[in-house]
Amino acid sequence: MSDQMLPPLTLILGGARSGKSSYAEGLLTALPVPWAYIATAEAFDDEMRRRIEHHQARRGAGWIQYETPLDIAATLSGDAADQPCLVDCLTLWLSNLMHADRNIAHETDNLVGALSKRSAPCIMVSNEVGLGIVPDNDLARLFRDEAGRLNQRIAAVADCVVFVAAGLPMTLKG
Amino acid sequence: MSDQMLPPLTLILGGARSGKSSYAEGLLTALPVPWAYIATAEAFDDEMRRRIEHHQARRGAGWIQYETPLDIAATLSGDAADQPCLVDCLTLWLSNLMHADRNIAHETDNLVGALSKRSAPCIMVSNEVGLGIVPDNDLARLFRDEAGRLNQRIAAVADCVVFVAAGLPMTLKG
Amino acid sequence: MSDQMLPPLTLILGGARSGKSSYAEGLLTALPVPWAYIATAEAFDDEMRRRIEHHQARRGAGWIQYETPLDIAATLSGDAADQPCLVDCLTLWLSNLMHADRNIAHETDNLVGALSKRSAPCIMVSNEVGLGIVPDNDLARLFRDEAGRLNQRIAAVADCVVFVAAGLPMTLKG
Repeated sequence: MSDQMLPPLTLILGGARSGKSSYAEGLLTALPVPWAYIATAEAFDDEMRRRIEHHQARRGAGWIQYETPLDIAATLSGDAADQPCLVDCLTLWLSNLMHADRNIAHETDNLVGALSKRSAPCIMVSNEVGLGIVPDNDLARLFRDEAGRLNQRIAAVADCVVFVAAGLPMTLKG
Repeated sequence: MSDQMLPPLTLILGGARSGKSSYAEGLLTALPVPWAYIATAEAFDDEMRRRIEHHQARRGAGWIQYETPLDIAATLSGDAADQPCLVDCLTLWLSNLMHADRNIAHETDNLVGALSKRSAPCIMVSNEVGLGIVPDNDLARLFRDEAGRLNQRIAAVADCVVFVAAGLPMTLKG
Repeated sequence: MSDQMLPPLTLILGGARSGKSSYAEGLLTALPVPWAYIATAEAFDDEMRRRIEHHQARRGAGWIQYETPLDIAATLSGDAADQPCLVDCLTLWLSNLMHADRNIAHETDNLVGALSKRSAPCIMVSNEVGLGIVPDNDLARLFRDEAGRLNQRIAAVADCVVFVAAGLPMTLKG
């Protein structure tokens, strides 16, 4: 019944350091333990390592950690299928897909398919990156376009979509 | 009477790939055909050509297309005066004005004047570009300032203003 | 009693040229004169001088001006302690602190402490800078992170938080 407290899919959008991850964790940890943390970050440099550690330190016990830079669909429909999940974050997942030269449209279809089969709640965190000036370089423009498309796609199938600014939620859907 | 379904002026704001154009098209195509599409884009390179074709492919029959990189006021008060219009987008129009060395304040006054004389609905799409870090170069900063001023000016005279994120609307006015 | 028209602390967030300063001034000037204007801008180049003069020209009589690039906590709890205040803006204050190599966490604690002791209304204006693509350079990324943290911290203690886009308010809190 506790799973009824959250719908199957919630998307949390926000900018850098907007408090979106903390907000998402707060939603999930209102449910009974354990909670699955599906991390898309890879510690390939010191700055990223510090960011990951900063996030891990803020979370306490009760979390099952999955390090899943690419295959979050497999984790969501496999080991974590019956667990309340937090995916943090979709934007980094997209970046990882692009670096690995994966087919974005195909991977997004896979993800949407995996989400549609779950009943345990899933909260996905994603960055809004399209509200600044047009980037100078081609790759940044392409990334921005793909990130916007991915957010639209997930928002369309989500039960609830929340935009977080300065730690405060605005409900866009649900 | 169907024109009563939309007020004379609606402004749709959003980031890159936020779904703002699709949302605007959805509003307009709820009215009977024909609909005027006032395109401010010019296909001066391959990337822009692909973006224009992507947008055109998404739209179907029923549209009268106007290619108007600069003189949207003339189109709105001339050939398209009695047609429900979609102007896509103001941000590109501003960029075109700056490249053509037009007087922004004067052109904006003209546009607001033309809009004030219409009774057929007009939907204008515009980018929000001021929510990132301050750009390095002078021209980008100037553009960002002018884009912000233009959005404020149109929002002040609009009957309805909607902010779109991930394809979902937040009503700011109306 | 007029001070009851505004709560002790209001945070106004928005992008560049979003109309956030005008909106904040409108809130404050609904109270009886005088109003304190706590400016964090320093005119260290021509562009900044023009921006400051543009803002000053828009404001009329009734304002007491404080030029406070760094020590806004001292002004808020000192000379301006009993005056309705507008702090414009926190983002520039953060930038000034970083240039002066001050301890951000310590200065933020001081500010929150000073705010907690006031009963006269204070409106703080701040930029949202985290909704664009990840900046290329380290300093811009650090600034973006600190700006996001600062906005979250002030939003947490504010009675009212408003996001302004195209001159139009969206209430996030209060």
